[in-house]
Amino acid sequence: MRTSAFYLATLKEAPSEAELISHKLMLRAGLIKPLARGLYSWMPLGLRVLRKVERIVREEMNAAGAVELLMPAVQPAELWQESGRWQKYGPELLRIRDRHQRDYCFGPTHEEVVCDAVRRDLKSYRQLPVSLYQIQTKFRDEIRPRFGVMRAREFLMKDAYSFHADAACLQRTYDTMHRTYGRIFERLGLRFRAVAADTGQIGGSGSHEFHVLADSGEDAIAFCPSSDYAANVELAEALAPSLPRSTAGGPMRKVATPGSKTCEAVADLLGVPLERTVKAIAVMAGARLHLLLLRGDHKLNEVKASKLPGCAEFRFASDDEIAHALGCEPGYLGPVGIDASIPVLADRSVAAMADFVCGANEAGFHLADVNFGRDLPEPGIVADLRNVVPGDASPDGAGSLELCRGIEVGHIFQLRTRYSQSMKVEFIDEAGVPRPMEMGCYGIGITRIVGAAIEQGFDERGIVFPAAIAPFEVALTPIGLHKSELVRAAVETLYASLQSAGIDVVLDDRDERPGAMFADMELIGVPHRIVIGERALERGEYEYKGRRDEQLTMIARDSAAAFLMARLGR
Amino acid sequence: MRTSAFYLATLKEAPSEAELISHKLMLRAGLIKPLARGLYSWMPLGLRVLRKVERIVREEMNAAGAVELLMPAVQPAELWQESGRWQKYGPELLRIRDRHQRDYCFGPTHEEVVCDAVRRDLKSYRQLPVSLYQIQTKFRDEIRPRFGVMRAREFLMKDAYSFHADAACLQRTYDTMHRTYGRIFERLGLRFRAVAADTGQIGGSGSHEFHVLADSGEDAIAFCPSSDYAANVELAEALAPSLPRSTAGGPMRKVATPGSKTCEAVADLLGVPLERTVKAIAVMAGARLHLLLLRGDHKLNEVKASKLPGCAEFRFASDDEIAHALGCEPGYLGPVGIDASIPVLADRSVAAMADFVCGANEAGFHLADVNFGRDLPEPGIVADLRNVVPGDASPDGAGSLELCRGIEVGHIFQLRTRYSQSMKVEFIDEAGVPRPMEMGCYGIGITRIVGAAIEQGFDERGIVFPAAIAPFEVALTPIGLHKSELVRAAVETLYASLQSAGIDVVLDDRDERPGAMFADMELIGVPHRIVIGERALERGEYEYKGRRDEQLTMIARDSAAAFLMARLGR
Repeated sequence: MRTSAFYLATLKEAPSEAELISHKLMLRAGLIKPLARGLYSWMPLGLRVLRKVERIVREEMNAAGAVELLMPAVQPAELWQESGRWQKYGPELLRIRDRHQRDYCFGPTHEEVVCDAVRRDLKSYRQLPVSLYQIQTKFRDEIRPRFGVMRAREFLMKDAYSFHADAACLQRTYDTMHRTYGRIFERLGLRFRAVAADTGQIGGSGSHEFHVLADSGEDAIAFCPSSDYAANVELAEALAPSLPRSTAGGPMRKVATPGSKTCEAVADLLGVPLERTVKAIAVMAGARLHLLLLRGDHKLNEVKASKLPGCAEFRFASDDEIAHALGCEPGYLGPVGIDASIPVLADRSVAAMADFVCGANEAGFHLADVNFGRDLPEPGIVADLRNVVPGDASPDGAGSLELCRGIEVGHIFQLRTRYSQSMKVEFIDEAGVPRPMEMGCYGIGITRIVGAAIEQGFDERGIVFPAAIAPFEVALTPIGLHKSELVRAAVETLYASLQSAGIDVVLDDRDERPGAMFADMELIGVPHRIVIGERALERGEYEYKGRRDEQLTMIARDSAAAFLMARLGR
Repeated sequence: MRTSAFYLATLKEAPSEAELISHKLMLRAGLIKPLARGLYSWMPLGLRVLRKVERIVREEMNAAGAVELLMPAVQPAELWQESGRWQKYGPELLRIRDRHQRDYCFGPTHEEVVCDAVRRDLKSYRQLPVSLYQIQTKFRDEIRPRFGVMRAREFLMKDAYSFHADAACLQRTYDTMHRTYGRIFERLGLRFRAVAADTGQIGGSGSHEFHVLADSGEDAIAFCPSSDYAANVELAEALAPSLPRSTAGGPMRKVATPGSKTCEAVADLLGVPLERTVKAIAVMAGARLHLLLLRGDHKLNEVKASKLPGCAEFRFASDDEIAHALGCEPGYLGPVGIDASIPVLADRSVAAMADFVCGANEAGFHLADVNFGRDLPEPGIVADLRNVVPGDASPDGAGSLELCRGIEVGHIFQLRTRYSQSMKVEFIDEAGVPRPMEMGCYGIGITRIVGAAIEQGFDERGIVFPAAIAPFEVALTPIGLHKSELVRAAVETLYASLQSAGIDVVLDDRDERPGAMFADMELIGVPHRIVIGERALERGEYEYKGRRDEQLTMIARDSAAAFLMARLGR
């Protein structure tokens, strides 16, 4: 491609509304153009990147035995009523009424549509399993669309659906998809993690999210560097401490801690480590106040807490509710001496503590050297209540956890018979008995991947794309193209030879200052650059620079194609 | 591809709601599956066809210098208000309200969106011309969607838009697109015609439709077999007869024609050729009755009539209006002896007639041997008022016209400044003056092409696809694959060799009766078939049959790939 025949429209400044670096850079580089809130046109440069992502996904899905189809964006309400989601789905479902006043939606997902096709076509166990996928435009009416394509309203998804005669077959395809997703993100050139995810009411271990790792990611992930273990922080289990509780030391004592309302402040004041303090969090659940105990350096995990008996819909207690139950203001709460009717739920770490510090249920005072079984009863419930922290033991026993942040770009899920039962997607089994099919679904956020790749690859000069999805693999920047016949001849020859080697090369044939051309090619993230200038040409050389390189490398004219092929790993 | 790894789901019977042959066959072959009125899923088999169409369109658009982008399906009302189309567009525009009660539409076309992008990016004549295109999902809320994908509500379009500094540049790109469309439909393997189309208020010759020729086509087309001339029948000009009017013969005479109210009946009764009769059609325009005169064998062209002075919104006169103006009932109307205030508009053919027959304005009577200038004044206006008929002279002087029917699959149009003025898509010209860009648009109905190709290619056994867009180019049908090691080894070798030759081959490895396999491959339109059976194998042969062939051809095993490459024209 020559820039003169392309539509290149970079901006000096990113529009001020962009918050996230990928959003800013996509706008500046001209990959996308905003149309309305959460709606973006993929400009020619961005579409090149998108198509490369699509191609890799498509090739790997085909290799995994999935068959591509294309379902409509607009879906009739009847099918969603049949699955029960027409009522359940919130306002993110963009509902549409046609000219005949019939109800439709702009599909955010296609379980209903694919179920309707499959139940009409497949009748026998002999026709199973089947995996179908599409790369298709979806809509989710986000209340606050932002972060550019990362949380746009209209977006491209690869969504796949598999149908099986039994759960074992589903598990095999699920495992294949898990490996396929790994290959996809490897080929895309992204650092990623497969993360165990919540399966909600369905239960089991049949759900994984795939996260691109980036500091700006919305999700906190706990992972074990020495194994495959990774989970959303909300889900990662904090094991009970491996060491038993120490024996109690000196007697409990009351200490004045005026104005010290946090564990940090109390630990500072008393000169004890934060890990020796216990915070008591008052919550209301089932109209009763409960006390949740966590170590001072730990954070409550609300997802875990909500799974405790009777706590499904807990909320934090108000100051009045606290005063009424404990006779104290927040900041000095503790489990000692409270009414026996107040349930106490202790995190596993707290249950293993001895000689700890906690609030005295009296403003301005804490208790020190507190011990369960001596100064207060053993906690009524001991459970995993907290977020894991770096250094916690990995639940798989393979080492200790680290934390990172991720952007969810893929999700695989064993739906089992959730849809096939309500929508009667049945087959006749070997015994002649009709049974609902087992079903899996497998999504990849195609447009989101582009944003995530940039969150993972950028510097002060712009985007640093992996070569696999860069809009161009190599930029040729001639100096004085419009003046020097020598340069012109050399660059045309090189351009033709790289093209015939199958390299995706862009020839910057604009009549621009070299600095402006360099800046554009760096901004849009081309990973390799060759400068063709008269001086070096006379020495039989080109000037090469990788997008992340500090230094230039001079390469011999004859070896340019081979040099680039090696850099591209081909 | 092996059928065992594919999703093949043919039907014995087409669903009864399908009227058109292509609709029936697409359902039976499993190319598409209905989801709701005018909404279809493209099943794996259909998607293969669709993708081949897309690829050809994309390659040719790129070769023509157009650059691909991808704009959103959902478009904000504001832009359509700016262009004035939010009000003008009827209920085919699917209007959507989002969760914040803002107005959007599901775009049936993208002039507004592309104008918005271009006006923000391009400022100078130096950046022009630019051609942008996309292949994208559109929606038109048809009141009565039917004919399957031919008039679906959701459909895929290739829509392109070009921007220019002046009309001459627009004309050059328009001509390039005209040639590009020709190449596209040639490569698709379709019989087609580029047809001059109405440019409405814009005027000029800057619009052509591309029609796939098929008997079931909705549009009647007049074309000249010995030149490129083609036009919608509504638009094709009927030239004035080349021969001058004959001199008048015997005197006008009144003849009794009781009950003969049509030209056909009168011609029969009087034993004169139909071409010697004149029919008078009474219309109301501007609150006055006008009389339109046509030869008895010609049909009024209402589009042409509406372009006559004062006739823009004409309607047919009622019996009362006719009685009031002419004192006669319909069936016996004529231009002789009428009030001089009644405008008479004669078709060019009528103006050249002598000794003709027309109504006497008296029930049960006609006049014969009527002549202008003698029996009545020369007509006030002589114009082209009729549809062309086969044998009419071609307007380009290259021969005579024939008629055929077509399905519109492409449309190119010089929009000029219709959108750039209302939406302020301006550039600074060489003199530093801001001016609206000249604009062209170029559409191809991607999904519709598949239906049109089938309307043009089918027989009693199913679809006959051109090889370029067939779901597979070659079907291998082994006989006894699951029993004969000889057959298995031969077919696997052949399959591998055809694949490595780049042939899109399907291996039917199902354990089905040969007849069922043959029927499926014929139904889905695979153009070439090779049968691998033990008997022929022992003689070193395969059995070949082209989709349209009556007879089998035996081919030597070693030459199968070369034989097929020759048949595929490669």
